[in-house]
Order: sequence, then structure tokens, then C-alpha cells
Amino acid sequence: MTFLLLGNLPESPSGSFFGHLLVIPMDGSHWMDLKAVAEEIGRRGHQVTVVIPEVSVRMGPGKHYKTLTYPVPYDKERIDSLLSMHMDVLRQSTQSFMEKINSRFSQIKNITSFIHTTAESLLFNASVISHLSQQHFDAVLTDPMYLVLSCSWLHVFLLKSLSGLPTVNLLRVIPCGLDTKSAACPAPPSYVPRFFTKFTDKMNFWQRVINTLPLLCRLFYWHFDHIAYQFLGEEVGVFNVLLSKYCGTLYRTDSILDFPRPLMPNMVFVGGISCNIRNPLPQVREAETDSWVSGEHGFVVFTLGTAVSVLPEEITAVLLEAFRQIPQKVIWRYTGPVPDDVPENVKMMEWVPQNELLAHHGVRAFITHAGSHGLYEGLCHAVPMVMMPLGGDQPDNAQRMASRGVGVVLDITTITVETLLQGLNDVINNSSYKESVEKLSAFHKDRPFDPLELSVYWTEFVMRHKGATHLRAAAHDLNWVQYHCLDVLALLATVVLLVVMVTMRCMRLCLRKLSRKRKQD
Amino acid sequence: MTFLLLGNLPESPSGSFFGHLLVIPMDGSHWMDLKAVAEEIGRRGHQVTVVIPEVSVRMGPGKHYKTLTYPVPYDKERIDSLLSMHMDVLRQSTQSFMEKINSRFSQIKNITSFIHTTAESLLFNASVISHLSQQHFDAVLTDPMYLVLSCSWLHVFLLKSLSGLPTVNLLRVIPCGLDTKSAACPAPPSYVPRFFTKFTDKMNFWQRVINTLPLLCRLFYWHFDHIAYQFLGEEVGVFNVLLSKYCGTLYRTDSILDFPRPLMPNMVFVGGISCNIRNPLPQVREAETDSWVSGEHGFVVFTLGTAVSVLPEEITAVLLEAFRQIPQKVIWRYTGPVPDDVPENVKMMEWVPQNELLAHHGVRAFITHAGSHGLYEGLCHAVPMVMMPLGGDQPDNAQRMASRGVGVVLDITTITVETLLQGLNDVINNSSYKESVEKLSAFHKDRPFDPLELSVYWTEFVMRHKGATHLRAAAHDLNWVQYHCLDVLALLATVVLLVVMVTMRCMRLCLRKLSRKRKQD
Repeated sequence: MTFLLLGNLPESPSGSFFGHLLVIPMDGSHWMDLKAVAEEIGRRGHQVTVVIPEVSVRMGPGKHYKTLTYPVPYDKERIDSLLSMHMDVLRQSTQSFMEKINSRFSQIKNITSFIHTTAESLLFNASVISHLSQQHFDAVLTDPMYLVLSCSWLHVFLLKSLSGLPTVNLLRVIPCGLDTKSAACPAPPSYVPRFFTKFTDKMNFWQRVINTLPLLCRLFYWHFDHIAYQFLGEEVGVFNVLLSKYCGTLYRTDSILDFPRPLMPNMVFVGGISCNIRNPLPQVREAETDSWVSGEHGFVVFTLGTAVSVLPEEITAVLLEAFRQIPQKVIWRYTGPVPDDVPENVKMMEWVPQNELLAHHGVRAFITHAGSHGLYEGLCHAVPMVMMPLGGDQPDNAQRMASRGVGVVLDITTITVETLLQGLNDVINNSSYKESVEKLSAFHKDRPFDPLELSVYWTEFVMRHKGATHLRAAAHDLNWVQYHCLDVLALLATVVLLVVMVTMRCMRLCLRKLSRKRKQD
Repeated sequence: MTFLLLGNLPESPSGSFFGHLLVIPMDGSHWMDLKAVAEEIGRRGHQVTVVIPEVSVRMGPGKHYKTLTYPVPYDKERIDSLLSMHMDVLRQSTQSFMEKINSRFSQIKNITSFIHTTAESLLFNASVISHLSQQHFDAVLTDPMYLVLSCSWLHVFLLKSLSGLPTVNLLRVIPCGLDTKSAACPAPPSYVPRFFTKFTDKMNFWQRVINTLPLLCRLFYWHFDHIAYQFLGEEVGVFNVLLSKYCGTLYRTDSILDFPRPLMPNMVFVGGISCNIRNPLPQVREAETDSWVSGEHGFVVFTLGTAVSVLPEEITAVLLEAFRQIPQKVIWRYTGPVPDDVPENVKMMEWVPQNELLAHHGVRAFITHAGSHGLYEGLCHAVPMVMMPLGGDQPDNAQRMASRGVGVVLDITTITVETLLQGLNDVINNSSYKESVEKLSAFHKDRPFDPLELSVYWTEFVMRHKGATHLRAAAHDLNWVQYHCLDVLALLATVVLLVVMVTMRCMRLCLRKLSRKRKQD
């Protein structure tokens, strides 16, 4: 007997739900992807509130979200002076060892203090906090670099005022592997290189030694914990806060930029969002420029990211001299005063549409600081790269890309005309770089879901379900000893030891009896 | 200066590629999802060749693939007798301990020998192998349970005749955790329960001890290696073969059926494919049946999977007696002779459209053997479950579902009228079961990609790119000592030991000098 029962599958769980999302962004290049996600979620009909300081590098209003600004005790000039601090770092070749240490240290100190100030401006702004507490948010989307660099103010604030609000992170990496640690995600030091080591997934013995050495991360974060204490009146460790609150992390990476490694189910790769973001540009001098770059030898795109748009004169001179000697045109993003002796094949511009240029058929190479956005745009359009990393995740990014054969890495502080010419010549004329980047590009772009769509999907998921508890590993409920089964191993070792000891004693007894017997015989 | 450069993003990498896929399926319920994927890939225009034995439980031709059959030295009756072997296992309550051991052992022996015969029939069929070798396949899609249960014949055969062909696995689990081991995927024994233990992700100390004890898997697989040697003329370990060949695994699970745990980038969850597969049924007695099940109290669906459609008389009598006492109608898949005293509210049928029934609004509970397909259909339609697992992954599946509060687990070999009534009463009348299953169902169905689409996507990916090398973790290139950094730990321990010894010696020297000085004083 057979029969047919009519009943439709329940409707798709998305669709008619409209929620309210709180977005706490991070400035600089971090803002790009977060803005794209906030815009798209707003465009889909959700209410999106982005909380930003009144003064910032890039953060600002958008078409599909509303912004809530709070006053900060600094102005645009302070930000500009912070941004120009890289000049000191770039002058390292002319500095003594102590000067180098000093310039790096003061750069870190200044940036940290700046973020502290920003964080405190929000945290102790009673009217903003009170306003936010009265909203009915479904989730918060944030870049927790802010959290880490700013005494966990965000989560502290959420704990106090918006307790229980599920959090989605959008990030590249948190120093000390805090992001994977907080997800209880294994990271075998034998092939998962730590950030800031510049190692790849193929390490020799000594690299593995360095990669395995314990990091004193508590020391690194202790002063963040301190401000959390000031605000909350109770001890809240950054680790604990991270562990207990967030639902999932959208990683601005994938198995192309980073090496294949273990992941947890609530870690989602969304690397390459910016690749599909096209800026609506005024069509000024369009035809002229298009014909300018469409020469026989093609052109090279040269940008060092938002933060670095001017270089020390001596480095600029070296670069210009090298560019003079190549047949390609060069489009260089540069906001400083244009030198007198710029070669004819070089255009220095205050702003370049990087992604659009990289998509042009005439592009031959991309000189980049190896920020993740730039790398993805290079990857996306299969452009071989000359990488000159400056700091943060860039040196690691660059080594990762170089190990895949898509470009070369140069040290900008010691660059010479010869090394740059050699690098450019390699990536432009040695076809292996183009082949490698084309292969990786094909892998990167062949994915079932667009990274922006995926980011929006999981953020909406957390909003719809008020969290993602089913993706939370039971590892979070175990202490360190239990997680590593050290208690079990101790027991097993004891058992083995006992067995060995008993066996030994038995054998000794037997031997003694045997020898006695022999003596008697 | 700004300008616009016109250049489109490269086209989506899918689309115009049409390849040739080899499918080596596994019989029984394993066939369901593999068939669905093969059909869909064929429907999309690829050439799909499915290699199956002339006689099987379920495997057969499809609309969108071609089949290549090979003769086997057994007939349908041998298969039927194999399937009826569960009767001995179900009679365990009346058996002595030795009889129990004996019936389990002979069941395993018979099934293994059956699969051996099937495997050898293909492996040593020169004309089939030669025909396959001449085809230009782009990839092979397989269920490696076959591999494991059949002396790695599949991979051996691939190694020899179709060397280098990228492989995609579609599986639930391989005993001994061979699937995760071969993917170099960490599985912390503290919260990732081993199969066949029935543990959940929350284990007490003694459960963790059992979960941590080393398994002698080499012993388990040694005879598979032996036949590989016979065919290849060289030693090929199952571990090595698995490690070296496959590109990715599609898991017939997700973080709902299994607990959240670490994954590798080439492990993809596609649990729940069958939930969307609706059988085109003849509309026989449709109206009559629909009205029959649409009573006030609803109905219960009772199936124990393809392999178990008859039960020993004494168990059947117990079940019927329990069903007689509930107000719900019961639809029971049962192929044996229908007893005389079937209550009015019970329909025993040779085949039931399980997925369609579970989607009906009148369903109140699902009595199931806790096979993964059935569980997903229950989950998909949010039906609370009474689970009576019989073997394989079922006892573990059942415990996992029970720990999530979506049903109760009963032992069918010792079942009584009271326990079944209690179980049914719980899941039907205690609303917590319905609430839990509705919550889990919402999580399960809220996914960015349909599991069938995702399976097809990744299989096509491997076909398009002739593999997925970029997802292969560098862990595969490390030996056991290197992977666990035991050499590094040895070095660090030595350094610590040396430091301690030197410090101790220094202190002793100092103390000695001090005491000498005192004596002199």
C-alpha cells in the first residue's frame, strides 16, 4: 500500500524577520568590510545603528544605516599626526638601534592611548550609553580589535548595559591568538604559524621552537582588564569576556590568504568582501586616463593603504628612480608634495580607485603594503604583487602570499633601485607569478557564497535566533586540565607505572628465588 | 584627480564546465544521499558513471546518470538472509551471554565477508577495470565506508588504474575516527566523544578516561591492508592511502546531529539531504489515508530503516499492545506477516513515505531506529522522537539527539509495554520535547546553502579544479613527533632541566662556601 500525504516543507526561516543591529566599528581599513556589511543589512530592511566618534579617519554616515556619534577630545589634526608617525618607522635605515626601538615604542604608545581615549569617550558618555540601553537590539556586530586594544570597553559596556546581547565579530586576527583561543579552536604550533613571526605552514625545527614557546598574553592584556574593572567594579578578564559573550566570528580571510588549519563551526571565512565593492566615481578625465594606462607595456598600481600616503624623501627618490627604468606606466597613490623630477611614466595621485585599476586588463603588477584588503583585490583580479609590508598583519600576509608564489617581499626601509627593479622584473616577466596568482585567484573566487552575502547571512542568523548556542563547543565548559585530559593522562601514567613496578618486583622475586634455588642445588 | 576604469569582474568560475564523474556508492541507506548527488550532478549536464553490482539492496539506475554493473557471485536471497540477521540480535533478551556474543560476531563476519566478495568482484573484473581506466574522469565520488570495510579496494584500484584522480568522500563516519585522522583534524578526547561509546560532549572523568584510551586501529584494519597488497603487489596502508588521495569529505551531519567540534577546511557538512527529497507517489488511496491519519489525536510514524522491516514475534506483540493503549493512530512499516490481533489504530505497511508522513501536520511522534536519514527527517519537520537504535552509528545518534532534549532512547531488545508507553507519553505530552525539536529544527534549516546544492557544489569544484590542493593542511607533511612538537617539547624540557640543575649546583656551592666561612669564623 502506498499513499500520498500533502504537506509542504516549512517556509525558509529568513524572509520576514526585521531586526535591529548595533554596530561598533573599528577605524581605518577595518571600517571597509564592516561598513559594507552594515549597509547591506540595512538595505535588506533591518534597522542598523552604527556608533562612531565625531572625528575619525574614515568612519561616517551611510545610505542604509543611521549613525550615532559621540564627542571625542581630539581633532582631525591629532589623527593626521598619528598617521604620519609611520614616517619615523620608515626612516629606520638611518636610525640607530635605540632610535628604532624608540620610534616603534612611541608609535604603539600613541596609538594605544588614542584608542583608549576614544573608548573612554563612549564608555563614560552617560547619555549615549543610556540611549543605547533603551533600544531593543537583536545583536551587535563589532571588530574586537577595538576590544583588545581598548580595555575590553565594548564588551564591558555590553555586559553592563546590554547584557545578553549576542555578538558577531568581524576581524582579521587578534594578537596572541586570542580569537582562536576564545573559540576553543586548536592551533597546532607545528604547522599553524603565529602572527608576527612571518613563518609559513612549513617550519623548520627552530621555527617550531619559537612558534611553540608560551606567550605571556596575560601581561599583554592586563591594563585592558584594569579599565574594565574601573567601569564595572568587578574583575572581568578579556579572555573570560570574549569566551562568554560572542556567538561567532566572521574572518576577513580564507584558506588562500591563510594556511589550511582547524576551525570551529562558528568561525566563518569571509575574506575578499572589498573585491566586489565598486566605487561610484565621477567620470572625470576617464577617457584620457584609460588611454594613458592602455599602453603596450601596461601599468603598475602602487598603493600603501589608507594610513601611509606619504613617504620620506629619500625612499620616494629611490622608488621614482626605479620606476624611471621600467617600460610600464606607474599609478601611485601619494598625498604629499609631488617632487619635481617625476618621470613621465609615473602619475602620483591623492586617491586611486585601487580595485577598479586592478581589474583593468592592462595591469601588470601591484606594489602593495600587503594589507588584507589590497591582497584580496590583487588576488581577485589575479595581479602578481611586489609586497612592502609596514606593520600589523602585513609582514605575515606578505610571507603567506610569497610562499604561494604570487609575489615577492621587499623591505621598504632598506629598499634600493636594484632590489625594486629586480622585484618588478620578476613578477612582471617571470610567468610563474602570473600562473600562481591566476590559480589562487580561481580557487578564491570559486565559492558557494559571496563573502558579503555570507557575512550578512550569519549576522542575520544571530539576530533571528538571538544567538547561535548550538555552535558553542562544550570545550568552553572545561578547565585547562580537563580540556587537555591531563587528569586522565596522570591516571593512565600511574597505572602504567604501577604495572611496571609490580612486574619488576615480581621478576626480582622470581630471580632471587631462582638464584637461591641454584645456590641450594 | 579621480577617474573611472572600466573592467568587469571575471566571470563566475562555474557555468560552462562539463566533466565526467565516477561514482562508487555504498549500499543500503548510504546509497540515498549519494544517489541524490549523482542525479543532481547528471541533471546539471555532467557525465556521471555509477559502478554498482548486478545485485544489491537498493542501488540501481537513475534518470541522470548511467550505470555500469558487474556480476557478483550471490543472489537477492543471500542479501535477504543477511538483512534478516538482525532478528538474532533482537532476540538478545532470551539469549545467554555466549549466544549474544556469537550472534553479534557472526553478523559482523557475514557482512564483512559479503562486502569483501562484492569488492573482489569489481576489483578482479578485468574488463570493467579496463573500461574505467579508458574513461577520462575528472573526479570520483565515493562513500569510503566501503573502502574501510573492503580492504581499501576502491583506493587501491584508483591508485593502480586511475592514478591521481581526485576523490570526494560522502560519509557519516568511519570507525576508529579514521575520517578525521586522515584529514589531520584535531579531536580533543575531552569533549569530542568517540563513536560506539554513546557518550555526549559532556563527559565525566571515567568517560573521558575511556574516550582517551588508545585504540588499536591498525589491528582493526590489518586484513584490509592485506588484500590491498594482494592486488597491488606492494604494501599500502589504509591510513596512507586515505591520507594521500582524497580532496575533501562531505559529512552527512552538522552541528545539530553531532556536537560542535574542530573541523578542517575540506570537511563540509551536508546533513539533511534526504529531507528535501520527495518521492513521486501514485495517488492511490490518498484521500482515504489522509482522513485516517487526520484524527483528533494525530498519529505516530514507526519505521526502523531499510534493513529492519520485520521484528521477532515477542517484540511485535509488546509493541502492538502498547499502541493499543494510545489514542494516536500508528503507521508502522512492517514487511512480515501481519499478526491477527492488530489494533484498529495501527496500520502495518510494507512501505511508508516516511518523509512525507513526518511533514504532515497531524504527526505527534516518530519511532525510529535513529539512522541519520530518519533523524534528519524528524528534525527537519520538528517531530519529537522515540529512538530504538539497533547498531552502527544509531546508538550514538540517539544519545546525541536525546541529550538535546528532542526525544527518548529505548532498548528494543528489552522493551516492555510500560517503557514504550512511558516514552510515547513523554514525547507526545511533555511540551519540552516539541519545543526542543522545534528550536533545533529552526537551527538546522537556517543555513545559507541547501545541503544537496552544497554537495554538488564541492564535487563540481573538485572536478573543475582537478582537486582542492589549497585546502590540504601542511599537517600531512609532518610525522607524529613533529605534528605534536614532541621534539620541541623535549628540547624545552631539557633546557628547563639544565637551568634547574645549574641553579641547584650554584646554590649548593654557595651554601658550602657559606658554611665553610662560618666554620672558619
